[in-house]
Amino acid sequence: MSELIALLPGDGIGPEVIHQARRVLELYRDKAGVDVELWELDLGAERYLRDKTTFPKDIADRIAKEARAVLLGALGDPRVGNLDYARDILFGLRFGLDLYANIRPVKALDDRLVPLKNRGAKDVNFVVFRENTEGIYVNVGGQFKRGTPDEIAINEDLNTRKGVERLIVAGFEYARAHGAKTVHLADKSNAMQHAHELWYRCFFEVAKRYPEIKPQHVFIDALCLYLVQDPSSFEVVVTNNLFGDIVTDLGAGLQGGLGMAGSASLHASDPKRVGLFEPVHGSAPPLAGKDLANPFASFLTVGMLLEHLGHPAEMARIEALVARGIRERRCTRDVGGELGTRAVGDWFLAELLR
Amino acid sequence: MSELIALLPGDGIGPEVIHQARRVLELYRDKAGVDVELWELDLGAERYLRDKTTFPKDIADRIAKEARAVLLGALGDPRVGNLDYARDILFGLRFGLDLYANIRPVKALDDRLVPLKNRGAKDVNFVVFRENTEGIYVNVGGQFKRGTPDEIAINEDLNTRKGVERLIVAGFEYARAHGAKTVHLADKSNAMQHAHELWYRCFFEVAKRYPEIKPQHVFIDALCLYLVQDPSSFEVVVTNNLFGDIVTDLGAGLQGGLGMAGSASLHASDPKRVGLFEPVHGSAPPLAGKDLANPFASFLTVGMLLEHLGHPAEMARIEALVARGIRERRCTRDVGGELGTRAVGDWFLAELLR
Ligand SMILES: CC(C)[C@H](C(=O)O)[C@@H](O)C(=O)O
Ligand SMILES: CC(C)[C@H](C(=O)O)[C@@H](O)C(=O)O
Repeated sequence: MSELIALLPGDGIGPEVIHQARRVLELYRDKAGVDVELWELDLGAERYLRDKTTFPKDIADRIAKEARAVLLGALGDPRVGNLDYARDILFGLRFGLDLYANIRPVKALDDRLVPLKNRGAKDVNFVVFRENTEGIYVNVGGQFKRGTPDEIAINEDLNTRKGVERLIVAGFEYARAHGAKTVHLADKSNAMQHAHELWYRCFFEVAKRYPEIKPQHVFIDALCLYLVQDPSSFEVVVTNNLFGDIVTDLGAGLQGGLGMAGSASLHASDPKRVGLFEPVHGSAPPLAGKDLANPFASFLTVGMLLEHLGHPAEMARIEALVARGIRERRCTRDVGGELGTRAVGDWFLAELLR
Repeated sequence: MSELIALLPGDGIGPEVIHQARRVLELYRDKAGVDVELWELDLGAERYLRDKTTFPKDIADRIAKEARAVLLGALGDPRVGNLDYARDILFGLRFGLDLYANIRPVKALDDRLVPLKNRGAKDVNFVVFRENTEGIYVNVGGQFKRGTPDEIAINEDLNTRKGVERLIVAGFEYARAHGAKTVHLADKSNAMQHAHELWYRCFFEVAKRYPEIKPQHVFIDALCLYLVQDPSSFEVVVTNNLFGDIVTDLGAGLQGGLGMAGSASLHASDPKRVGLFEPVHGSAPPLAGKDLANPFASFLTVGMLLEHLGHPAEMARIEALVARGIRERRCTRDVGGELGTRAVGDWFLAELLR
């Protein structure tokens, strides 16, 4: 039986990169027997401007019940003037599908892409497990006396034992499955004595179940410093929603930019459930429609999607091909090439077919 | 009349670097007529282990009433087992003295110290204004059903119009005084819709009073990415307490490490009030007592202190001498030299005396 994959190209450069990613998926479907049904969703800024639709319940329900994966391009369009519609969709997927583990590999595929002196691709290779359903993103809080000199504005960083534990477990399970020797917790428990004391305590409790793995603690500020000095000692990093967001953008910088960073959001304890796959980059309005967007992030994201569908070997193949694209300059300008989005896609498809 | 400067060497490498910084201050006192009275405080881990004293009210009161500055080394000692005593002192100073602007220059003094390929010292030169009395650091929140599977742990990110506005004003005032063309706000207003909507709104309101300066907005995740790609476009960054903490550690990485980063915490609207001066580094227990600590961060911090005392030209002089120390390898190992803390101090003092 074929697996239903929802494609949500979205805004800005989203449609351009998802178009190329779609070609890759179609190739796997037509030539490699990966039995998928592609279902393209007309959601995002265009749709919102047309009829105010953001994330309809019938679509959300069908995704939850029938889909195995959602492949999302990017959301955000200056014409709309705010991000409410984008949050409806993005958080509708992340929260609505309870995709608690946002998995973001920070892996450099070519020495040239690493912006650090005396460091090469081999030094940039870790995976961030970002909690994806709680923390500051719940947007609990409010504004009191808004617009007056006495205004108070609050957002709560909300963490549950259940939410924290399952994310940490996902990180350790991944470490075990991949033979990692360490897992790092990144927090700010020296300042956030309630929320991050829970993270700290839970981390070392969970670690006891994985005696072969060394649990290590690092403050988020120190982590960001180490990442620009020497990222080579990190293998798996578990962290909260906000810090995961920050550290993976920094990590994208170490990989060669947002055009090189893919991600998966999973309900990690049950691999049969639907997953969300998105390049880490945004909609990049200034690049949109110009054939300038780097499709490699979305190809790497497709690699994670194929792994989710039960084809783990394809990730390595896609990664190797992206690495060759960089090496041979068959890539876009942001990573040192001169090709357009479409030409990179053409080359990639042709090579995949060999 | 002489100005009272409280010295708080603290823990770990704190006493070693503050000893050198004290020599610099004494030299300014004895040879350059900078009329200061030095008052050394016996506070920190040693004192706490001896008699449980953390931050006594009589000392806090005398600082508030009589001192012009506090020069703090670092706090934190593994023998104590927790950081409560350290927070009593550090937050006692920052919050107790209402030092709302934590000013952290991110300035590389030598090309060799910049860890980025194709970037030199000229590309790393901005100042972070970190809000220092609110945000997540108020530690408002709690734990509910602690230790059970249903545990909930919360920290509130608390922001007031007054607190946000005065910090943003401090950043713009600095920008105006130093001829900066831009001020960046770094926030996460796309996720923290209450707390950071206030920051966003307030930023652009304040900016109207500074028509010659261009206000620019950047999300914190994007900022961390830009900083490893190309930090050269930033001049002044205003941000909240937590993001300021993170971004200045990353910034220290761009400057050559924590051994090169100084800071001042001021009640910026009233320069006559007491200020707190601290190197950005921590107590670094593994380095303590080994004559390995880099004293340059504390010398640069003394430069900021002298500026606070009304001697702005000395900052440039100290900075130039530190730059020469790096260039001529009259420095510690962390920045490519072979000297010990004391030997660097000896050289620095001798050069200052010329
Ligand atoms: C668009 C924004 C809300 C989002 C986030 O913060 O999660 C983005 O930065 C990301 O990392 O996917
Ligand atoms: C020790 C810690 C609480 C402190 C902070 O987070 O402010 C430190 O990281 C700093 O930047 O001065």
